[in-house]
Amino acid sequence: MADGSSTVHARALLQQCLHAHLQVRPADGDAAAQWVEIQRGLVIYVCFFKGADKELLPKMVNTLLNVKLSETENGKHVSILDLPGDVLIIPQATLGGRVKGKNMQYHANSGKEEGLELYSQFVSLCEKALAANSKCAEAGVAVAHGTYGNRQVLKLDTNGPYTHLIEF
Amino acid sequence: MADGSSTVHARALLQQCLHAHLQVRPADGDAAAQWVEIQRGLVIYVCFFKGADKELLPKMVNTLLNVKLSETENGKHVSILDLPGDVLIIPQATLGGRVKGKNMQYHANSGKEEGLELYSQFVSLCEKALAANSKCAEAGVAVAHGTYGNRQVLKLDTNGPYTHLIEF
Repeated sequence: MADGSSTVHARALLQQCLHAHLQVRPADGDAAAQWVEIQRGLVIYVCFFKGADKELLPKMVNTLLNVKLSETENGKHVSILDLPGDVLIIPQATLGGRVKGKNMQYHANSGKEEGLELYSQFVSLCEKALAANSKCAEAGVAVAHGTYGNRQVLKLDTNGPYTHLIEF
Repeated sequence: MADGSSTVHARALLQQCLHAHLQVRPADGDAAAQWVEIQRGLVIYVCFFKGADKELLPKMVNTLLNVKLSETENGKHVSILDLPGDVLIIPQATLGGRVKGKNMQYHANSGKEEGLELYSQFVSLCEKALAANSKCAEAGVAVAHGTYGNRQVLKLDTNGPYTHLIEF
Protein backbone atom coordinates (compact mmCIF):
# COMPACT_ATOMS: atom_id res chain seq x y z
CA MET A 1 0.00 0.00 0.00
CA ALA A 2 1.08 3.57 -0.47
CA ASP A 3 0.72 6.17 2.29
CA GLY A 4 -1.00 9.36 1.19
CA SER A 5 0.69 12.61 2.13
CA SER A 6 -1.31 14.57 4.68
CA THR A 7 -1.57 17.90 2.86
CA VAL A 8 -1.25 18.27 -0.86
CA HIS A 9 -0.81 21.82 -2.18
CA ALA A 10 -0.10 21.04 -5.81
CA ARG A 11 -0.18 18.07 -8.11
CA ALA A 12 1.96 17.54 -11.18
CA LEU A 13 1.65 14.76 -13.72
CA LEU A 14 4.64 14.09 -15.97
CA GLN A 15 4.65 12.37 -19.34
CA GLN A 16 7.52 11.91 -21.80
CA CYS A 17 6.83 12.65 -25.45
CA LEU A 18 8.34 12.54 -28.94
CA HIS A 19 6.02 15.34 -30.08
CA ALA A 20 3.18 17.23 -28.47
CA HIS A 21 0.84 19.82 -29.95
CA LEU A 22 -1.35 21.93 -27.68
CA GLN A 23 -3.98 24.42 -28.79
CA VAL A 24 -3.46 27.76 -27.06
CA ARG A 25 -6.20 29.68 -28.81
CA PRO A 26 -9.35 28.20 -30.31
CA ALA A 27 -10.51 29.11 -33.81
CA ASP A 28 -12.53 32.32 -33.80
CA GLY A 29 -14.52 33.28 -36.88
CA ASP A 30 -11.94 33.68 -39.66
CA ALA A 31 -8.99 33.32 -37.33
CA ALA A 32 -7.52 29.81 -37.28
CA ALA A 33 -6.76 28.10 -34.00
CA GLN A 34 -3.26 28.67 -32.60
CA TRP A 35 -1.04 25.87 -31.37
CA VAL A 36 2.27 25.39 -29.62
CA GLU A 37 4.47 22.39 -30.19
CA ILE A 38 7.35 20.61 -28.50
CA GLN A 39 9.73 17.91 -29.68
CA ARG A 40 11.25 15.15 -27.58
CA GLY A 41 10.42 16.50 -24.19
CA LEU A 42 8.52 16.58 -20.96
CA VAL A 43 4.83 17.32 -20.58
CA ILE A 44 3.87 18.67 -17.15
CA TYR A 45 0.17 18.83 -16.30
CA VAL A 46 -0.22 21.02 -13.21
CA CYS A 47 -2.95 21.75 -10.69
CA PHE A 48 -2.94 23.93 -7.57
CA PHE A 49 -5.00 23.45 -4.43
CA LYS A 50 -6.40 25.98 -1.94
CA GLY A 51 -3.64 27.14 0.35
CA ALA A 52 -0.88 26.68 -2.23
CA ASP A 53 1.60 29.47 -1.79
CA LYS A 54 4.00 30.93 -4.31
CA GLU A 55 6.82 29.96 -1.92
CA LEU A 56 6.17 26.39 -3.10
CA LEU A 57 6.94 27.17 -6.73
CA PRO A 58 10.76 27.21 -6.75
CA LYS A 59 10.75 23.80 -5.07
CA MET A 60 8.28 22.44 -7.60
CA VAL A 61 10.32 23.76 -10.51
CA ASN A 62 13.53 22.38 -9.07
CA THR A 63 12.06 18.94 -8.49
CA LEU A 64 10.23 18.63 -11.81
CA LEU A 65 13.08 19.86 -13.99
CA ASN A 66 15.72 17.75 -12.22
CA VAL A 67 13.94 14.43 -11.72
CA LYS A 68 15.53 11.80 -13.94
CA LEU A 69 12.67 10.57 -16.08
CA SER A 70 13.76 11.46 -19.60
CA GLU A 71 15.27 8.68 -21.67
CA THR A 72 18.50 9.22 -23.62
CA GLU A 73 19.32 7.37 -26.82
CA ASN A 74 21.30 4.93 -24.69
CA GLY A 75 18.29 4.07 -22.56
CA LYS A 76 19.56 5.94 -19.51
CA HIS A 77 17.26 8.26 -17.59
CA VAL A 78 18.28 11.87 -17.06
CA SER A 79 16.51 15.09 -16.15
CA ILE A 80 14.84 17.15 -18.86
CA LEU A 81 17.55 19.80 -18.29
CA ASP A 82 20.25 17.23 -18.96
CA LEU A 83 18.59 15.59 -21.96
CA PRO A 84 18.11 18.46 -22.86
CA GLY A 85 14.54 18.73 -24.05
CA ASP A 86 11.52 20.96 -24.45
CA VAL A 87 8.96 21.36 -21.70
CA LEU A 88 5.21 21.72 -22.27
CA ILE A 89 3.23 22.94 -19.28
CA ILE A 90 -0.50 22.25 -19.34
CA PRO A 91 -2.87 23.75 -16.77
CA GLN A 92 -5.04 20.83 -15.66
CA ALA A 93 -7.30 21.78 -12.77
CA THR A 94 -9.20 18.55 -13.35
CA LEU A 95 -6.30 16.77 -11.61
CA GLY A 96 -7.62 18.27 -8.38
CA GLY A 97 -10.91 16.42 -8.58
CA ARG A 98 -12.08 13.91 -6.06
CA VAL A 99 -14.66 11.30 -6.98
CA LYS A 100 -17.99 11.20 -5.19
CA GLY A 101 -20.39 8.66 -6.61
CA LYS A 102 -20.59 9.31 -10.33
CA ASN A 103 -19.28 12.83 -10.17
CA MET A 104 -16.01 14.62 -9.52
CA GLN A 105 -15.82 17.44 -6.99
CA TYR A 106 -13.20 20.14 -7.14
CA HIS A 107 -13.71 21.66 -3.67
CA ALA A 108 -10.02 21.56 -2.82
CA ASN A 109 -8.90 23.40 -5.96
CA SER A 110 -7.46 26.88 -5.74
CA GLY A 111 -9.69 29.74 -6.77
CA LYS A 112 -9.54 30.84 -10.41
CA GLU A 113 -7.44 33.95 -9.78
CA GLU A 114 -5.04 32.31 -7.36
CA GLY A 115 -4.68 29.37 -9.74
CA LEU A 116 -3.89 31.69 -12.66
CA GLU A 117 -1.32 33.58 -10.61
CA LEU A 118 0.41 30.42 -9.42
CA TYR A 119 0.30 28.86 -12.88
CA SER A 120 1.75 31.97 -14.53
CA GLN A 121 4.56 32.18 -12.02
CA PHE A 122 5.26 28.46 -12.34
CA VAL A 123 5.60 28.84 -16.13
CA SER A 124 7.82 31.86 -15.70
CA LEU A 125 10.13 30.09 -13.25
CA CYS A 126 10.44 27.11 -15.62
CA GLU A 127 11.31 29.46 -18.49
CA LYS A 128 13.96 31.11 -16.33
CA ALA A 129 15.40 27.75 -15.29
CA LEU A 130 15.83 26.61 -18.88
CA ALA A 131 17.26 29.96 -19.97
CA ALA A 132 19.79 29.85 -17.12
CA ASN A 133 20.93 26.34 -18.01
CA SER A 134 23.78 26.48 -20.52
CA LYS A 135 23.10 23.02 -21.98
CA CYS A 136 19.48 23.98 -22.60
CA ALA A 137 20.35 27.40 -23.97
CA GLU A 138 22.86 25.90 -26.42
CA ALA A 139 20.38 23.28 -27.60
CA GLY A 140 17.68 25.89 -28.06
CA VAL A 141 15.10 23.94 -26.09
CA ALA A 142 12.16 25.89 -24.81
CA VAL A 143 9.15 25.98 -22.53
CA ALA A 144 5.70 26.09 -24.14
CA HIS A 145 2.53 26.39 -22.14
CA GLY A 146 -1.22 26.20 -22.38
CA THR A 147 -3.63 29.07 -21.87
CA TYR A 148 -5.12 28.91 -18.39
CA GLY A 149 -8.87 28.45 -18.47
CA ASN A 150 -9.03 27.14 -22.04
CA ARG A 151 -9.83 23.68 -23.25
CA GLN A 152 -6.41 22.00 -23.49
CA VAL A 153 -6.68 20.35 -26.91
CA LEU A 154 -3.66 18.06 -26.92
CA LYS A 155 -2.13 15.64 -29.40
CA LEU A 156 0.61 13.48 -27.98
CA ASP A 157 3.08 11.13 -29.65
CA THR A 158 5.21 9.06 -27.30
CA ASN A 159 7.71 6.24 -27.08
CA GLY A 160 5.99 5.38 -23.82
CA PRO A 161 4.55 8.25 -21.70
CA TYR A 162 6.28 6.85 -18.58
CA THR A 163 3.63 8.66 -16.57
CA HIS A 164 4.57 9.88 -13.09
CA LEU A 165 2.68 11.75 -10.39
CA ILE A 166 4.45 14.14 -8.04
CA GLU A 167 2.63 15.97 -5.26
CA PHE A 168 3.80 18.98 -3.29
CA MET B 1 -5.21 22.08 0.34
CA ALA B 2 -6.23 18.54 -0.44
CA ASP B 3 -6.14 15.79 2.17
CA GLY B 4 -4.32 12.68 1.07
CA SER B 5 -6.10 9.39 1.70
CA SER B 6 -4.35 7.32 4.32
CA THR B 7 -3.89 4.07 2.38
CA VAL B 8 -3.84 3.89 -1.37
CA HIS B 9 -4.14 0.42 -2.92
CA ALA B 10 -4.49 1.39 -6.55
CA ARG B 11 -4.19 4.49 -8.66
CA ALA B 12 -6.03 5.17 -11.90
CA LEU B 13 -5.47 8.09 -14.25
CA LEU B 14 -8.24 8.88 -16.74
CA GLN B 15 -7.93 10.78 -20.00
CA GLN B 16 -10.54 11.38 -22.69
CA CYS B 17 -9.48 10.81 -26.30
CA LEU B 18 -10.66 11.13 -29.90
CA HIS B 19 -8.24 8.39 -30.96
CA ALA B 20 -5.56 6.40 -29.19
CA HIS B 21 -3.08 3.89 -30.56
CA LEU B 22 -1.12 1.65 -28.22
CA GLN B 23 1.62 -0.77 -29.17
CA VAL B 24 0.94 -4.20 -27.70
CA ARG B 25 3.85 -6.02 -29.26
CA PRO B 26 7.12 -4.47 -30.38
CA ALA B 27 8.62 -5.20 -33.78
CA ASP B 28 10.64 -8.41 -33.73
CA GLY B 29 12.93 -9.18 -36.64
CA ASP B 30 10.65 -9.45 -39.67
CA ALA B 31 7.46 -9.22 -37.62
CA ALA B 32 5.99 -5.71 -37.55
CA ALA B 33 4.89 -4.17 -34.27
CA GLN B 34 1.28 -4.80 -33.26
CA TRP B 35 -1.06 -2.08 -32.11
CA VAL B 36 -4.52 -1.67 -30.66
CA GLU B 37 -6.65 1.36 -31.29
CA ILE B 38 -9.68 3.04 -29.80
CA GLN B 39 -11.93 5.80 -31.06
CA ARG B 40 -13.66 8.46 -28.99
CA GLY B 41 -13.17 6.93 -25.60
CA LEU B 42 -11.60 6.66 -22.21
CA VAL B 43 -7.96 5.90 -21.51
CA ILE B 44 -7.34 4.36 -18.08
CA TYR B 45 -3.74 4.15 -16.88
CA VAL B 46 -3.65 1.80 -13.88
CA CYS B 47 -1.18 0.94 -11.15
CA PHE B 48 -1.49 -1.41 -8.16
CA PHE B 49 0.25 -1.10 -4.82
CA LYS B 50 1.40 -3.77 -2.36
CA GLY B 51 -1.56 -5.02 -0.40
CA ALA B 52 -4.04 -4.43 -3.21
CA ASP B 53 -6.57 -7.24 -3.15
CA LYS B 54 -8.70 -8.55 -5.97
CA GLU B 55 -11.73 -7.69 -3.83
CA LEU B 56 -10.99 -4.08 -4.75
CA LEU B 57 -11.39 -4.65 -8.47
CA PRO B 58 -15.19 -4.68 -8.86
CA LYS B 59 -15.38 -1.37 -7.01
CA MET B 60 -12.66 0.10 -9.21
CA VAL B 61 -14.40 -1.03 -12.37
CA ASN B 62 -17.74 0.27 -11.17
CA THR B 63 -16.35 3.67 -10.29
CA LEU B 64 -14.21 4.15 -13.39
CA LEU B 65 -16.82 3.04 -15.91
CA ASN B 66 -19.62 5.07 -14.29
CA VAL B 67 -17.91 8.35 -13.44
CA LYS B 68 -19.29 11.11 -15.66
CA LEU B 69 -16.21 12.43 -17.45
CA SER B 70 -16.97 11.73 -21.10
CA GLU B 71 -18.27 14.61 -23.16
CA THR B 72 -21.28 14.19 -25.42
CA GLU B 73 -21.78 16.21 -28.61
CA ASN B 74 -23.98 18.55 -26.53
CA GLY B 75 -21.18 19.27 -24.09
CA LYS B 76 -22.75 17.25 -21.27
CA HIS B 77 -20.64 14.81 -19.27
CA VAL B 78 -21.70 11.21 -19.04
CA SER B 79 -20.03 7.93 -18.13
CA ILE B 80 -18.10 6.01 -20.77
CA LEU B 81 -20.84 3.36 -20.60
CA ASP B 82 -23.48 5.96 -21.40
CA LEU B 83 -21.53 7.75 -24.14
CA PRO B 84 -20.95 4.92 -25.13
CA GLY B 85 -17.28 4.71 -25.99
CA ASP B 86 -14.24 2.50 -26.20
CA VAL B 87 -11.94 1.94 -23.24
CA LEU B 88 -8.17 1.60 -23.47
CA ILE B 89 -6.48 0.21 -20.36
CA ILE B 90 -2.77 0.90 -20.02
CA PRO B 91 -0.66 -0.74 -17.31
CA GLN B 92 1.38 2.11 -15.84
CA ALA B 93 3.36 1.00 -12.81
CA THR B 94 5.30 4.25 -13.02
CA LEU B 95 2.24 5.94 -11.48
CA GLY B 96 3.22 4.28 -8.21
CA GLY B 97 6.51 6.11 -8.00
CA ARG B 98 7.44 8.50 -5.25
CA VAL B 99 10.07 11.16 -5.77
CA LYS B 100 13.22 11.14 -3.67
CA GLY B 101 15.72 13.76 -4.71
CA LYS B 102 16.31 13.30 -8.42
CA ASN B 103 14.98 9.76 -8.58
CA MET B 104 11.70 7.95 -8.34
CA GLN B 105 11.25 5.02 -5.99
CA TYR B 106 8.68 2.31 -6.54
CA HIS B 107 8.86 0.61 -3.13
CA ALA B 108 5.09 0.68 -2.64
CA ASN B 109 4.29 -0.98 -5.96
CA SER B 110 2.85 -4.47 -6.07
CA GLY B 111 5.18 -7.28 -7.04
CA LYS B 112 5.38 -8.17 -10.71
CA GLU B 113 3.24 -11.29 -10.48
CA GLU B 114 0.61 -9.79 -8.20
CA GLY B 115 0.46 -6.75 -10.44
CA LEU B 116 -0.02 -8.88 -13.55
CA GLU B 117 -2.77 -10.86 -11.86
CA LEU B 118 -4.63 -7.76 -10.67
CA TYR B 119 -4.18 -6.04 -14.03
CA SER B 120 -5.46 -9.03 -15.97
CA GLN B 121 -8.50 -9.38 -13.75
CA PHE B 122 -9.17 -5.64 -13.95
CA VAL B 123 -9.14 -5.82 -17.76
CA SER B 124 -11.40 -8.86 -17.72
CA LEU B 125 -13.93 -7.19 -15.41
CA CYS B 126 -14.01 -4.11 -17.65
CA GLU B 127 -14.60 -6.30 -20.70
CA LYS B 128 -17.46 -8.06 -18.91
CA ALA B 129 -18.98 -4.75 -17.84
CA LEU B 130 -19.07 -3.44 -21.40
CA ALA B 131 -20.38 -6.71 -22.79
CA ALA B 132 -23.17 -6.74 -20.19
CA ASN B 133 -24.22 -3.18 -21.00
CA SER B 134 -26.80 -3.17 -23.77
CA LYS B 135 -26.01 0.35 -24.98
CA CYS B 136 -22.33 -0.60 -25.31
CA ALA B 137 -23.07 -3.93 -26.93
CA GLU B 138 -25.32 -2.28 -29.52
CA ALA B 139 -22.76 0.39 -30.31
CA GLY B 140 -20.01 -2.19 -30.67
CA VAL B 141 -17.63 -0.37 -28.34
CA ALA B 142 -14.83 -2.42 -26.88
CA VAL B 143 -12.06 -2.62 -24.34
CA ALA B 144 -8.47 -2.67 -25.60
CA HIS B 145 -5.50 -3.07 -23.31
CA GLY B 146 -1.76 -2.89 -23.17
CA THR B 147 0.60 -5.79 -22.58
CA TYR B 148 1.75 -5.81 -18.97
CA GLY B 149 5.49 -5.35 -18.66
CA ASN B 150 6.00 -3.86 -22.12
CA ARG B 151 6.91 -0.34 -23.08
CA GLN B 152 3.51 1.36 -23.55
CA VAL B 153 4.11 3.18 -26.83
CA LEU B 154 1.09 5.48 -27.02
CA LYS B 155 -0.19 8.03 -29.51
CA LEU B 156 -3.06 10.11 -28.24
CA ASP B 157 -5.36 12.56 -30.01
CA THR B 158 -7.71 14.51 -27.79
CA ASN B 159 -10.23 17.33 -27.67
CA GLY B 160 -8.84 18.00 -24.20
CA PRO B 161 -7.62 15.03 -22.11
CA TYR B 162 -9.64 16.27 -19.10
CA THR B 163 -7.18 14.34 -16.94
CA HIS B 164 -8.44 12.93 -13.65
CA LEU B 165 -6.84 10.92 -10.88
CA ILE B 166 -8.82 8.41 -8.85
CA GLU B 167 -7.27 6.44 -6.00
CA PHE B 168 -8.63 3.33 -4.31
